[in-house]
Amino acid sequence: MKSGAVFRKEQFVIPSGVIYLDGNSLGPLPRIASRRITEVVEREWGQALIRAWNECAWMEQPARVGDLIAKLVGAPGGSIVMGDTLSIKVYQALASALQMRPDRKIILSDSGNFPTDLYMAQGLIESLDKGHELRIVAPEAVERSIDETVAAVMITQVDYRTGRLHEMNRITSAAHDAGAVMIWDLAHSAGAVPVQLTDSGCEFAVGCTYKYLNGGPGAPAFIYVRPDLVETVRPALAGWMGHDVPFAFDRDYRPANSIERMRVGTPPIIQLSALEAAMQIWNGVDMGDVRAASIELSERFIAEVEKRCPALHLVSPRDPAARGSQVSFRFEHGYAAMQALIDRGVIGDFRAPDIMRFGFTPLYLDTGDIVTAAEVVEDVILNRLWDNPRYKQVNSVT
Amino acid sequence: MKSGAVFRKEQFVIPSGVIYLDGNSLGPLPRIASRRITEVVEREWGQALIRAWNECAWMEQPARVGDLIAKLVGAPGGSIVMGDTLSIKVYQALASALQMRPDRKIILSDSGNFPTDLYMAQGLIESLDKGHELRIVAPEAVERSIDETVAAVMITQVDYRTGRLHEMNRITSAAHDAGAVMIWDLAHSAGAVPVQLTDSGCEFAVGCTYKYLNGGPGAPAFIYVRPDLVETVRPALAGWMGHDVPFAFDRDYRPANSIERMRVGTPPIIQLSALEAAMQIWNGVDMGDVRAASIELSERFIAEVEKRCPALHLVSPRDPAARGSQVSFRFEHGYAAMQALIDRGVIGDFRAPDIMRFGFTPLYLDTGDIVTAAEVVEDVILNRLWDNPRYKQVNSVT
Repeated sequence: MKSGAVFRKEQFVIPSGVIYLDGNSLGPLPRIASRRITEVVEREWGQALIRAWNECAWMEQPARVGDLIAKLVGAPGGSIVMGDTLSIKVYQALASALQMRPDRKIILSDSGNFPTDLYMAQGLIESLDKGHELRIVAPEAVERSIDETVAAVMITQVDYRTGRLHEMNRITSAAHDAGAVMIWDLAHSAGAVPVQLTDSGCEFAVGCTYKYLNGGPGAPAFIYVRPDLVETVRPALAGWMGHDVPFAFDRDYRPANSIERMRVGTPPIIQLSALEAAMQIWNGVDMGDVRAASIELSERFIAEVEKRCPALHLVSPRDPAARGSQVSFRFEHGYAAMQALIDRGVIGDFRAPDIMRFGFTPLYLDTGDIVTAAEVVEDVILNRLWDNPRYKQVNSVT
Repeated sequence: MKSGAVFRKEQFVIPSGVIYLDGNSLGPLPRIASRRITEVVEREWGQALIRAWNECAWMEQPARVGDLIAKLVGAPGGSIVMGDTLSIKVYQALASALQMRPDRKIILSDSGNFPTDLYMAQGLIESLDKGHELRIVAPEAVERSIDETVAAVMITQVDYRTGRLHEMNRITSAAHDAGAVMIWDLAHSAGAVPVQLTDSGCEFAVGCTYKYLNGGPGAPAFIYVRPDLVETVRPALAGWMGHDVPFAFDRDYRPANSIERMRVGTPPIIQLSALEAAMQIWNGVDMGDVRAASIELSERFIAEVEKRCPALHLVSPRDPAARGSQVSFRFEHGYAAMQALIDRGVIGDFRAPDIMRFGFTPLYLDTGDIVTAAEVVEDVILNRLWDNPRYKQVNSVT
């Protein structure tokens, strides 16, 4: 079984009685990250104090951790840097892209994109006030909607709701054929499916690290810039950490001649250290094996749930090759049902209006977990355990 | 002695043999923050996992911690929210301000402002491409340079290099008299000097929390919006966490009718939790007492150093009322001298080209520390201990 090659549950804190199918939203705590946080807090911040910026190489951390991410997403060293949130990194990529195509006014995205990507585009367009337009089409219409009016195509590779997987190389080629800049959001891809950024040829990619990369709640985001553009792309968010010589304290901004120009402010060292430690879990892990194991688990989950619960309707693509590492079902009482599941230790999440979402992370899930989870789903649905006043709607998090 | 009222060194980790005069750059580790980080990592992230967003009230943390900051800077609850870095918050404030004065093209700042504020303005101006201009004048010329062409006045209250303190109310009034929007950067003010944002009448304020607020390396920044503007100010960085109903996953951005509209992406929970805990240190602390103690310590330091080391020239204002909570001296071999001091446990920092900077934080410093520090300075300068090849120039951090 392929999953055996990547299974390393002992490296994570998984509470007893929990089957965690929400690593696509917040990855669990890696034991090594917990130890590293204590070390960075007590030894580095506590004892080295300000000296830690140099002595503990905090200053280089955003690029150093970026290199670790790069290995997982098929990008070369020096092409990814960490910082800020995914929303901010989307803004940087988009602002840079529009500046590269000054005569074009369309940002093309799809209705399956995560809202913050669309919101950041709307905010940017309003700020620029130059007649740009955000054109949102259906996921399956993206490729045919790319034409010579499009400045940038901005797509999240895996749909946060349905798990639908866009074909990275084909859409990137279509964008380039029309002269558009391609931006990929890898929020649900990095650590979940094999990604080959270099092969794709895309100009920009962004992603978050608190999902499949297990960096912790609010872990910093990443941005990739294609190496041939790294010295020319204009950083709209011209922060001092992206300056060529930040500690010269020059009065005028002059971007670094490297990916570091996409840095903005002071990096969040504690969270970045947690992430850096969490990335060690991937040593010796082949993303092809992760993908094979993820498909095995998700196929099994779909089969078990469909067999047991006819009321649940698969909204993810049935073809595993067209799906990321999550499976979503539509159920009228999805919110309450998910609360009932969580109460019983099967943790997935809910996306409005009626989607029950389950993520499959073979680093800490095996077939036994999947079958047990399906049994609990069956119990909740068939015995109407969701029909309980305490499972009424509140917030939930991506 | 006033300093007694605020002295609470036992609440901080201060390594033995260290006199820490760099709390203006990175505050030391509060013991309570260390405990809280362990708790948020092991119990909340580790055990509650995704449920912690609701169960542990992570989602409300940016506004809740903002309210704690508000108490220290004379602002009402609901006027401050946390997130991102100071650079990003400067960008938000500036972008909003320019949008409030569409017919004006000047951003006025001073040559004592921290470079990233100037850089972010330059980046914004270039993005907007509407003929805005960043006008940088000498600190003492700010007030007389404000005229009806100025859209926004953007000033850091305490000069990071010299400690020079701008008069907040006077400059704000001058800005308003000319119809300009006022933005204060409180990086070196919050927790250092009494600030009364409401009294000042300024529209925006921003600040960082890893200096005098001891939130840890890369702790999140804050932004204040004057309450009457909170429902109308336009967030240029339109992230989903600033949406009126983030979890409705609407396709169109609609900002929250509150300070939350200045949120952008997913908050850095671990760092924010460290900060939230660190803010408890201020319970029962009067900023007037902090100011009095800070002046007492810095006056004593100046007197001791000037008596012992004629080679060091004070570049901070001699009048303590015109100074923040730091004292800077010019010395030709300042970098090497600071390295020699640090080697001997007296930790200040250096700012190019020749400034030795010392911060005074009466929460964990007393007169004895100050006299000892001055003795070490004397030893380093008079005995030319700085004249050592291992003290040559490398980086240093604000």
